[in-house]
Amino acid sequence: MISGVFAPIATPFNKDGNIYWDKLKFNLDKWSRSGLSGLVVLGSNGEFQLLSRQEKEELIGFVRENTPKELKVIAGTGCESTRETIDLSKKAADLGADAVLVVTPNYYKACYTPAALKAHFEAVADACPIPVMLYNMPGNTGINMTSDLIAELASHPNIVGEKDSSGNITQVSETISKTSPDFTVFAGSASWLLPALCVGAKGGTVALANVLPEQCVAIYNYFQAGQLEEARKIQLNVLEINKAVTARWGPAGLKAAMDIVGYYGGPPRLPIQPLTAAQLEELKGILQRGKFI
Amino acid sequence: MISGVFAPIATPFNKDGNIYWDKLKFNLDKWSRSGLSGLVVLGSNGEFQLLSRQEKEELIGFVRENTPKELKVIAGTGCESTRETIDLSKKAADLGADAVLVVTPNYYKACYTPAALKAHFEAVADACPIPVMLYNMPGNTGINMTSDLIAELASHPNIVGEKDSSGNITQVSETISKTSPDFTVFAGSASWLLPALCVGAKGGTVALANVLPEQCVAIYNYFQAGQLEEARKIQLNVLEINKAVTARWGPAGLKAAMDIVGYYGGPPRLPIQPLTAAQLEELKGILQRGKFI
Amino acid sequence: MISGVFAPIATPFNKDGNIYWDKLKFNLDKWSRSGLSGLVVLGSNGEFQLLSRQEKEELIGFVRENTPKELKVIAGTGCESTRETIDLSKKAADLGADAVLVVTPNYYKACYTPAALKAHFEAVADACPIPVMLYNMPGNTGINMTSDLIAELASHPNIVGEKDSSGNITQVSETISKTSPDFTVFAGSASWLLPALCVGAKGGTVALANVLPEQCVAIYNYFQAGQLEEARKIQLNVLEINKAVTARWGPAGLKAAMDIVGYYGGPPRLPIQPLTAAQLEELKGILQRGKFI
Amino acid sequence: MISGVFAPIATPFNKDGNIYWDKLKFNLDKWSRSGLSGLVVLGSNGEFQLLSRQEKEELIGFVRENTPKELKVIAGTGCESTRETIDLSKKAADLGADAVLVVTPNYYKACYTPAALKAHFEAVADACPIPVMLYNMPGNTGINMTSDLIAELASHPNIVGEKDSSGNITQVSETISKTSPDFTVFAGSASWLLPALCVGAKGGTVALANVLPEQCVAIYNYFQAGQLEEARKIQLNVLEINKAVTARWGPAGLKAAMDIVGYYGGPPRLPIQPLTAAQLEELKGILQRGKFI
Repeated sequence: MISGVFAPIATPFNKDGNIYWDKLKFNLDKWSRSGLSGLVVLGSNGEFQLLSRQEKEELIGFVRENTPKELKVIAGTGCESTRETIDLSKKAADLGADAVLVVTPNYYKACYTPAALKAHFEAVADACPIPVMLYNMPGNTGINMTSDLIAELASHPNIVGEKDSSGNITQVSETISKTSPDFTVFAGSASWLLPALCVGAKGGTVALANVLPEQCVAIYNYFQAGQLEEARKIQLNVLEINKAVTARWGPAGLKAAMDIVGYYGGPPRLPIQPLTAAQLEELKGILQRGKFI
Repeated sequence: MISGVFAPIATPFNKDGNIYWDKLKFNLDKWSRSGLSGLVVLGSNGEFQLLSRQEKEELIGFVRENTPKELKVIAGTGCESTRETIDLSKKAADLGADAVLVVTPNYYKACYTPAALKAHFEAVADACPIPVMLYNMPGNTGINMTSDLIAELASHPNIVGEKDSSGNITQVSETISKTSPDFTVFAGSASWLLPALCVGAKGGTVALANVLPEQCVAIYNYFQAGQLEEARKIQLNVLEINKAVTARWGPAGLKAAMDIVGYYGGPPRLPIQPLTAAQLEELKGILQRGKFI
Repeated sequence: MISGVFAPIATPFNKDGNIYWDKLKFNLDKWSRSGLSGLVVLGSNGEFQLLSRQEKEELIGFVRENTPKELKVIAGTGCESTRETIDLSKKAADLGADAVLVVTPNYYKACYTPAALKAHFEAVADACPIPVMLYNMPGNTGINMTSDLIAELASHPNIVGEKDSSGNITQVSETISKTSPDFTVFAGSASWLLPALCVGAKGGTVALANVLPEQCVAIYNYFQAGQLEEARKIQLNVLEINKAVTARWGPAGLKAAMDIVGYYGGPPRLPIQPLTAAQLEELKGILQRGKFI
Repeated sequence: MISGVFAPIATPFNKDGNIYWDKLKFNLDKWSRSGLSGLVVLGSNGEFQLLSRQEKEELIGFVRENTPKELKVIAGTGCESTRETIDLSKKAADLGADAVLVVTPNYYKACYTPAALKAHFEAVADACPIPVMLYNMPGNTGINMTSDLIAELASHPNIVGEKDSSGNITQVSETISKTSPDFTVFAGSASWLLPALCVGAKGGTVALANVLPEQCVAIYNYFQAGQLEEARKIQLNVLEINKAVTARWGPAGLKAAMDIVGYYGGPPRLPIQPLTAAQLEELKGILQRGKFI
C-alpha cells in the first residue's frame, strides 16, 4: 500500500531552459535522506505540462535510477488523450516506476462527464502494467471528480488510490468513507495534511515537501504517534509558506523557496515567470517568520 | 468563551405559514436535553431571510425564555444594511440573547470589499451591547471573508468569534493561526466538524444538530477525550445525511429529516419548496443507511 | 407593451442617511425631460436591499406622483419570501405603479431550483393586479434564470417581460427566440444595449440612464432609425463610464457620477462605502475622456 | 486584413483512431465551395489537444495544400510552453499557413498573470514569421484575457487580431473600442455572431461553420448588406443547433451533426465519447426544428 509523505518533485532547468541533470541528482540525494516515503516525478510541480515527451521519459528513468529503492517513485503520466496516457504509462512501467499518477484530462470540459472520465481511467488502468493513482486537481484543470466517481473507479483492481488537490475536506472524507481501507487517499497539499490524516487519509503528495520535507514528515509522524498537539503546531506554522509555493506563486514560488533553503530551484520554464525581486523578498520574510531559515 | 456544539435551529411553521410556537417549544425541550452547548436562533437554517422583522424579535424572545440558562442563545442579526443590523442587534441584547451572529451583507457584491466589510462589522460591534460572532457563508452569500480580514476584525474587543461555513479547511486553519486562543472559530457544517477540531476549532454551529444533536455532540466529546478513532467513525457516518440536510436540499431537507426522527419539522416557507415524495423516500433511505432510524 | 429606455433610479439620502425627498424631486424633474420611456423605482441601483418596508412604500408613491404620466413607473418588489413579494406587489399597484419588476430570491441557492422559481413567480403573477416583469440579476444574486425557464413563465398572462442583467447575449437571444414578439426583453446594462437591440430586445433598464439618459436614449433612437453606425459610436463610447457605475463601483460610483454631471447623487447607505478621493478623481477622468463633462 | 467567416475545422478520424485523410479532403472540398473566407486547422474543434506533434504538422501541410488559395488557412499553434508554441508556429509558417491562432496557456493558472501572458504572446509574436491572432477561450482554459491586455498586445506589429470565445459581448465591445480599426476581433461562436458584427467585429471563427457554413456566411453577408432583419432571423434560428455542437456536446456533437448533414464527422478521439443513440436522436430533432435537414 502507498502511504506516507511524497514530494512531487520540481524539474530543475539550467539557464538555457534545459533539464539540469546534475542539480536534479543533488536534490534527489537530499530528499532521499529527509524521511520521505517516495517521490512523484512529472507532477504539476514538476511542470510536466511544459515538458516534451522525450524529456518526460528521460526524467522518469533518471529519477528511478537515482533514488534509493526504499523510496517509491510514482510517475505522472496523465495526458489529454487516452491513447497517449496509456502509451506513456506503459513506458513509465518499463522505466521502473512503482505506480503512475494520472491527472484528469481537462480541455474539453463539456465532454468530460463522469461517464467519459470513468471510461478514460478504466482504459488506462486496464492497459497499465503498474498500479494507477487518480489525480484530482480542479484548481488547475477546472474539473472535479466527485467522491462517487472515485468510489466507482476504486473498484477497479489496478486503481489503488487518489491524490486529491481540491482542498475540499468534506469530499476527501466522503471518498474515504466510500472506499475500502486499503485504497489510498492522499492529501494534495500540505495546508490540510493534518485534517486529512484525521479523517483517514494515508498521507500526502505535497509541493511543500520539495522545500521542507522534514516539516511535512513531522506532521505525519506526530499524527501516527498520537501526538496531535505537536502535529497541529507544525501544521499551523507551515500554512503561510505552503500558500506561497502553491496557490499564490505556483512552481515559480516553489523553486525560489528551494533555492533559499538549500535545494536547487532555478528558473521555471516560460510562460511561468520567475519571482520578481520584491516577491523574493516577501518570500524570504515568510520563511523567516516560520523560522525555516 | 463560546465553545461546544450549537444547533442553528429551524423555525417551525404551521399550515398557514405562520410560526408554530407550540412545536417550537416542543423542539426546544428536546434539544435542551441533547448535550448541546447552545442554540442559534435566526441562522440560515432558521430561514431568517424569509421572516419579517416582527417575527425575528418574537423568535429571539421566545427561544431565550424557553431554553435553560445553561445553554447559550445566539441570535442571527445580520441584515443587508448596517443600520438595520445594529438596530436588530441591540434588540436581541434587550431580549436576552447571549451573543449575536452577523452574516456578511451580500447583494452589492462589487461594493462589499474587505474595507467595506471591515467598516460594517466594526460599526456593528461598536454599537452592540453583547458579543459579536462573524458569520462567513459564501455558499449562500457569494462573499468570502479571508482569514486576513477575520484576523483584523478579531482584534476588536467585542468580536469574539467566527462561524465559517466555507468548507475551506485551509482558510479555517489560517484563521486559527492568526487569532488568539480565546477567539472562537466554529465549523459551520457537521461534514467537517472533526477536522476543524483537529486544527483548533472550538466547536461548531451545524445544521445537523437540529436532527441528530447527540451524534454531533459525540464527535465533539470523543475528540475532547482523545478518542480520535471513535470520533472519526461518527464523522464519516454522518456525511451522507449531513449533505442531504444542507448542500443538497437545504432547509426543506432539514425539516423533513426532523419530522422523520421525532422533532417537528413542518413545511418550509415559500419560495422554498417542501421535498417531493420521491425525495422523502430517498431521505429515509439515507437515515436508514446511517442507522439513525 | 413596455419598450424604450428606463432608468432604475438611485435613492437619494441626506447626511443622516434618510431619504432626501427634495433631491429626489429634483432628479425626477430632470429625468422626465431626458427622453426616457420610464423609471424603475426600487431597483438594484435604488439600493432597495438597504431600505425598510416603509421607505419602499413611500418611495413608490412619491415617484409615481412626481413623474409625468407619459413615463411609466415600474416598482421593484422582489423580496426573499413569496408572501412578502406578493404583499409589496399589491401595495405597489395600490400606489399607482404601472408594473412590478421582481428579482429572483437568492439566499437559499440550493433550494431555488427552476421548479421553485417557477412556482414563486407564478404565485406572484397570479396575485399581482398589475403586470409583472422578471428580473434576472446573477451578478448580485448568484442565480441565473435560463431562457427555458423564462420562456415557460412568459406563457403566464400576467408576466409581460424580463430584464436580463446577466450580460450573456446568447441567453438574451435565446429568450427572444423562445418568446412571442409582444414579450419584452430588456437589456439590464448600457454596456450591451445596442447588441441586445440588434437581436430583438425592446429596450433596456440601465443604470447609466441615471447619469447620462440622453446618451442611452440616443443609442435606442439611432437604432430605431436604422442609423447603426451612429448608434455604435455612442455604444462604444459609453463602455468605460458604464463599467465605472456598475460592475466596478456599483451604486457608490453611480451616485458620485450623478453628482458630477448635475444630478443629486449623495452618499450611499452603509455598508456601501462612498468613493475615496482617488476613486473620485479617476471617475472624473473617465467622464472627461468620454466628453461627458 | 483578416475578415469574414472562418471554420475551425474538425479533424476526421477513422475507426482505428488515426487521421482519415481522404475524408478530410472531401470536407475541404465542400467547405471551399460554401462562401467561407478561410479555415482554422488545429483549433479547439479540431481536437488539437488530442493530437501528437507529428499529426499537427501533417495536418497543417495537408489543409493548406488542399484548400484553394482564395481561402486563408490559419493554424492553431498554442502549446502550454512558450518554447513549443514558438517552434510549432515557425513550422506552421514553413508549411504555408497564412497566420497562427495562439490560445492562452492554461494549466498553471496561478502563474498566468496578465504580465506572464503578455510576455508569452510577445515572445511568440517576435519569433513567428507570419501574423499572430490571440485566442481567448475561457470556457476551456479557465483563463480570460481582459480587453486591456488584448489592447496592449494589439500594439505589437505582428499581432493582428483576436478570436474571443468568452461570449462576453461587453468585453468584445471594449476590445474593439480600445484597438485600431485594422485589428481584427472575431466572434468565437455563431451564437453571437450578429451582435458582435453590430459592435464592430470583423467576422468570426465559429464551430457551426463546419456543419452549416452557408448559414453562418449568410448572417455575415446580410449584415454587410444592411439587411439586419434577415440577419437576425438566421441568427435566432441557429442558436439551438449551435449550442448542441459547442457548449452542450462539444466536438462529439459537432462531428455527429457533420455526419447528418453530409460532411464526414466520424468518431471523436478518446476521452471524448461519441454521442449516445438518444443524444443522436435529439440532435436530429434539433436539426429538423431548424429546417436544416
